[in-house]
Parts: sequence; structure tokens; C-alpha cells
Amino acid sequence: MTDPATLSAAEAARRIRDGRLSATALTEALLDRIATREPGIRAFVHLDPALALRQAEAVDRAAKAGRVGPLAGLAFGVKDVLDTADQPSQYGSPIWAGHRPRTDAACVALARRAGAVILGKTVTTEFATRHPGPTANPHNPGHTPGGSSSGSAAGAAAGFFHAGFGTQTAGSIIRPAAYCGAVGFKPSFGTLHRAGMKVMSESLDTIGIITRSVGDAAFAMAGLTGGDYGDPEARPGRAPRLGLCWGPTAEQAAPETREAIERVAAAAARAGAEIVPIEMPEPVAAGLAAHALVMNGESADALAWELDHAPALLSPGLRERMEWGRDQPRAAKEAGRAAFATARAAVASVMADVDAILTPSAPGEAPEGLGWTGDPAFNSLWTLLHLPCVTVPVGTGARGLPLGAQIVTAFGRDGEALAWAEWVRQAAVA
Amino acid sequence: MTDPATLSAAEAARRIRDGRLSATALTEALLDRIATREPGIRAFVHLDPALALRQAEAVDRAAKAGRVGPLAGLAFGVKDVLDTADQPSQYGSPIWAGHRPRTDAACVALARRAGAVILGKTVTTEFATRHPGPTANPHNPGHTPGGSSSGSAAGAAAGFFHAGFGTQTAGSIIRPAAYCGAVGFKPSFGTLHRAGMKVMSESLDTIGIITRSVGDAAFAMAGLTGGDYGDPEARPGRAPRLGLCWGPTAEQAAPETREAIERVAAAAARAGAEIVPIEMPEPVAAGLAAHALVMNGESADALAWELDHAPALLSPGLRERMEWGRDQPRAAKEAGRAAFATARAAVASVMADVDAILTPSAPGEAPEGLGWTGDPAFNSLWTLLHLPCVTVPVGTGARGLPLGAQIVTAFGRDGEALAWAEWVRQAAVA
Repeated sequence: MTDPATLSAAEAARRIRDGRLSATALTEALLDRIATREPGIRAFVHLDPALALRQAEAVDRAAKAGRVGPLAGLAFGVKDVLDTADQPSQYGSPIWAGHRPRTDAACVALARRAGAVILGKTVTTEFATRHPGPTANPHNPGHTPGGSSSGSAAGAAAGFFHAGFGTQTAGSIIRPAAYCGAVGFKPSFGTLHRAGMKVMSESLDTIGIITRSVGDAAFAMAGLTGGDYGDPEARPGRAPRLGLCWGPTAEQAAPETREAIERVAAAAARAGAEIVPIEMPEPVAAGLAAHALVMNGESADALAWELDHAPALLSPGLRERMEWGRDQPRAAKEAGRAAFATARAAVASVMADVDAILTPSAPGEAPEGLGWTGDPAFNSLWTLLHLPCVTVPVGTGARGLPLGAQIVTAFGRDGEALAWAEWVRQAAVA
Repeated sequence: MTDPATLSAAEAARRIRDGRLSATALTEALLDRIATREPGIRAFVHLDPALALRQAEAVDRAAKAGRVGPLAGLAFGVKDVLDTADQPSQYGSPIWAGHRPRTDAACVALARRAGAVILGKTVTTEFATRHPGPTANPHNPGHTPGGSSSGSAAGAAAGFFHAGFGTQTAGSIIRPAAYCGAVGFKPSFGTLHRAGMKVMSESLDTIGIITRSVGDAAFAMAGLTGGDYGDPEARPGRAPRLGLCWGPTAEQAAPETREAIERVAAAAARAGAEIVPIEMPEPVAAGLAAHALVMNGESADALAWELDHAPALLSPGLRERMEWGRDQPRAAKEAGRAAFATARAAVASVMADVDAILTPSAPGEAPEGLGWTGDPAFNSLWTLLHLPCVTVPVGTGARGLPLGAQIVTAFGRDGEALAWAEWVRQAAVA
């Protein structure tokens, strides 16, 4: 018999709906896997197996009664900047130690409504910024999993759950997913409501998911939102026009990344894709130049209480960045937001000329050590542009760690982002 | 000696800074006024005079030590959809009865940092939607103060505090401020960070303030944000080019409102303003047509936990609207948000042609009774356009209740909105 923990999200949900698999058996299989590998990975900041099993039993009762949602019995890991009513929500900060919110974050409530089991809370860096948690890369425990969605990326890659919620302000979904060899999906800005999230930058923060496959990402997003995310594994009937974009941070691509993206582009061309080089117009680069100012300026407002009442409990690096953000002139922050708006308008015509953009997911392999979660150089631009982004694993680098390729489409074209990402992945691994 | 409760915000703060007035004496004067009038107005859902005085005493100690912020000793009322660490935060809903957040909302933390006294929590309708609280209009207790920022509007008009925080998704700052004869200011979208707010619609919700005067609004905003909001009472050296806009809901203006806005326009013209009629281009009206769908769709996501776990504690009307919003197709909600974006782009050229728009603040005087907080017909458009709006009192209607005129400027031109609002107000009352 197949280990149910290896089933795709769609297949597992189908079997639970049909009564061929119980949510309890699925959850037990995932918990077994977690029991074996979690001590070396440390993806969870909170995991209560008994609570997970009680949720699964409730799903099984609902399934017997014929009341089963689209995500019935699927397991979710929830980044710990998202509130859960039944589990601590501590935002990666000692300031929030032991915090128990009264309600679930909106995205968590939508997952439960669709029948998901909220397996546990996954490790986030401090307030989804830089200071790391204890999570290790599942491919090599001496390397970072990336961040800030460290636990959701490592856990998804390790097969601990079908989907891990992540959030991205700079590169906090795409980069860790790439480092861990998982699929990361940052939807168009605003797709998943941020109620019950510890929001830092209102202009940037975007909730998304990290999964084992593109198909699982589409299935999970459809179940959460009721939207149509297509079936990425049913390949489109044509090859894409792909814009190859190194972006304003091209020089930060490590040789392994340059080689990988060129290899992927060549494979896509062999599979019929038209590859066109893309240079970003100047207003787009100007938007990127404002990213740090807006991010830290807005985050300093978001953490105003923490800064004023518990500064000693902030990491020195975060406190320094927040004080810097707090002290920037208000007019400069507003000019930065205006630069974002101009960049979003300017990118529309670029995106209209291609089906999707192919670009690196991260500078290179996951850095060694757990002290630094890596650089979001290849992510901040797409985050501020609000565009849907998918990273897919496309091989390994010199140290044997995963490399990702990032696919970006026009605003609102989320299903196409997933479809072309899977198309490119299949071309690359063919 | 002047009653310190009657001083302008700038004058009170100046005297506290100079040691000519203590924050304690100012707070006591406000509490005296509240003790007299609050039983008939019911602006507060939570008021702890001893806590307010302890805050004032701390400000006085800081002032003696020379550490005094720009809003030192000024009193703020905080709409109860904004978290306060030292006071209950119940969002106008029994679901959140007794809730005590761990931290302040960002805007509250900024107010405290600047030296403000957080006097109390002001009445909101249920989750800042329609179901009213007990607040009465200070001008006639048989009439609504409007909503959803009912307590902040009534309290500001009654002189209970220097500024009341409000939030607006449709017309929840401008309308109640107009009904109560106060000044309401909805800044450009995104000006005050929503961390610690019970956000309903991410695309619409905007935090602002309600005050006794335009000067107080500018002073408070500058103190909160560090931004330059000018000195509205120092009149610009020229008269404005004013667009007279009845908007897509023109037919909903009551005769008293039509007469008042025409009177204000005529007075402005006599004072030198050039008055030009403004028709909104079609994409702007199309944006307005999507307002209810986006508002209720996003709010249904925001209240997903409440809908699934405590539906019996929602008012029947809200539950019905949230179920409707929940059940609308995801694609329609996304199309609605796209219509907003198109409308925002389309309005830019309209705004570029005038200094400001003059338009009604509300359909008419405050409706009779406390069961209905009135119609946001003249507000939803400007909210979705993200433009700064100011309502100023410009006289009374047939029932002797206040009427407001609304001034709107281009995105980011917040200081100009305040300046032209005060210019128009002075022309109207001359």
C-alpha cells in the first residue's frame, strides 16, 4: 500500500472524499514522518500531534456525513506570523512569547473551512525579518533553509504537510522555497487577506504558500479561495514566449545560478519556447531603489509599540533597522510608495509582451550556517511590483543543494504563473 | 482664566511644552466636560478617568524633564476597532467582549510616542459596519451621530478630546463628522499603518481623525506622522480652482444639501475661487459600481473565523452581507479590485485640472433615530479612489442639524486638502 504521506494533495483529498483514505490515517502518516525527521530540521515552533489528530477525526466525521470541503484532510503548516486560535502565535519574537490569539488569521480560517488540518506553527525569523530561527535545510542541516518562511519551506520540502503558509515582504517565500527544493507561490498582491497576520509593510506583505509540487500549490489555492488556478500538470497546448530577465541585480547571480537559468532557458527553447531578453525600464529599477526605505519605514510603524515598550527584546539588527526606518522623513517614505506605483504601471507593458518572465529565485544555493537566511536580491523587485511569482526546483548547484527558477506573470495572471512554471520545470528536468 | 478644554490642539500643546499648562489640568478639564455631557451622548465604550490621569501625569513628568513630544498632553479618543494595550478592544461585537490586546495599534502607539493621552475607546458600529452602537448626536440626542466612527465624531464635536481616531471603508469618517458638525479627515490611503486595526476591506480601509477644527486635524496628523500638513489657518495667498462635483450619486443629495453646497460654491466664488463643474469619467463610476462587492467580499474573508465559529453573535444584517460577500465568485472580486485600479488611474487627470473638488459630505442632515447611521453615498467613491478628503461644517439644515462640505484633492496632496477645506469653510461662514 502507498504511504499516504506521499500522495499529491489532489489525490489525497480525492481519496478522503471517496472514503478510501481517512484524514486520521493521513495525519498519522505525516506525523510519523515528522517524528523521524523533525529533530534534524526543526520546522515547527509549535506542534501538538494530539490536536492535529483531533482535527483529522473531525474531518473524518464530516466526510462520513458528506460534508467535506475541497481540502478535506490536507495538512497545512502555518508560519508563525499568522494567528491561530488553538495554537500559540509568537511572531518569532520573545515579545510575543506565549501569545494565544482569540481567532484564526483569515487564511487559516479559510483553510479550516475547506477541511484542512492545521498541523502546527512553522518557524519564522523574527517578525518575518532577518534574525533566524533554528530551522535547518532538509537537504543539508549545515545550511540555512532561507527565510523568513523558514519552517514552511523546510517542512514542505520534507513532506511534513501539503502546504505551508508563507509571507513575503522582500523574498521570504520564493527564496526559502528555492533553497529547500520546494515550490513557492507568491500570489498577486491582495489575494489572501492579511487579517490576523502580523503585518509589517502594508505596501509589500503578501501571503502565499510553499508546497512539494506546482499541482499541490494550484490545488491548495483553489481550495482556499474558490478561484480557478487551473491544472498546471495538464500542459498548455502551446509553448510560451518567455522573457529572460536578470533584472537590476543581475551581478548578484552566482555562477551556479547563471548556469542553471541559462540551462533552463535552453531546455525551454528546445521544448518550443521563444526566449526573449528583457530589460526593465528605468522606473522599475527606481521602484526597487525605494524598497528598503518603504519596507523599513512601514515596518517601523508596524512595530511602534514594540520599539517603544520592549526595545531590549528586539534583536540589535532589527532594532537598528527599525530606528532607521522610523527616522526617515515622512515625505521620503511617501515618495517611495509613489515610486512603487510608477514601477507597477511601467511594468505592465513589459509583461504584456511575454507569457511569463524567467528569472533567478535566489543568488545561489542556500548559504552555509544557520545565522543568515540569504539575500532577497532576486525577489524584492517582484514583490513591490505585486506580480504573481512561482519558484520551481531545477537541479542542484556545486554543493548539491537545490536551485530554483522563478516564473513571473502579469498582475492577476496567477493561474498562468503556475501553468508556465510547471511547463518550464518539466522542460528543465526532461 | 480660559477653560483649557477650549484651547486649540496647537495652543494646548504649546502651553504644556512651555510649562504654562499641565497635561493633568487639561485632562481634568476634559473629564469634567465629559462627566457633564457623556450620559446624553454615549461616545465612549470604555473610559477610565484614573487611567487617563495617570497618562497625563506621566506626560507632565516628561515635560518637566524636557522630553515632550509634539502632541504632549493632547487627548485622543480611539475608535474601538483599534487595539489598545491598556484598555479593552471589542470591535463593536459581542464576539470580542472583554478582549485585551497585548499591544497598541500602530497609530495609537504613534500618538503615545508623541505625548498624547489615550483618553478612552470610542463607540464603533459592529466591526465598523452598519449595526449601530448607543451614541447620540451631540446636536440632538434623537438623531444618529452617523457611523461607523460614531463615538469619535460625537466626542470630537462635543469637545471631549482633541482628536478621535476613525476608520473609513465607505463613509465612516466623513459622514459622522459632518452629521456632528466636526471636521473629519480621511488621509490618502496608507498614511496611517493599519497594524492593530480590525481591518475589514484591505483595499478600502483607511485610518483618519475627527477633530473640532481643520487646524487641529493638521496639527494632530503632523504630530502623529512627522509629516508636513501645513498650517491651514494661514490662508494660501491665492484662491483655488474648485471642481464642483455632484458625482455619480447626485440624485441622492437632499434639497438641504444641494442648497448648502450651492451656497458654499457661491461664497467661494465671491472670495475669488474659480468654480468649474466636474463630471467623473465612466471608469470612475465603474469603480464605484464595484464598491459593495469588494467591500463585502474582502470583509467576509476578514471575518471568516467569526462567520464560521460565532455566526449567532453577528447581527443578522451583517451575517447576511458577509454570506453574500463570501459566496460571490472570486473572479468577480478580482475584477472589482481591477476596476478600482482603473478608476484611480482615470481620476488622476481630473484631479490635475483643479486644486480641489467640492462635493457633499453626506446626503443631508443626520437621520432621526439611532437605528441607522445614514448613507455613505457621497463617500464610497472617494474612499475607493484613495484620495484625501476633509469635511468641514458649513451651516445647518431645516432641522437645525449640521451640514458638511467635502473637499477632495489629488492622491498625496493631504496638506492641500486641509488648506483648501479651511479656505472654503472660512468663505462659507464669512
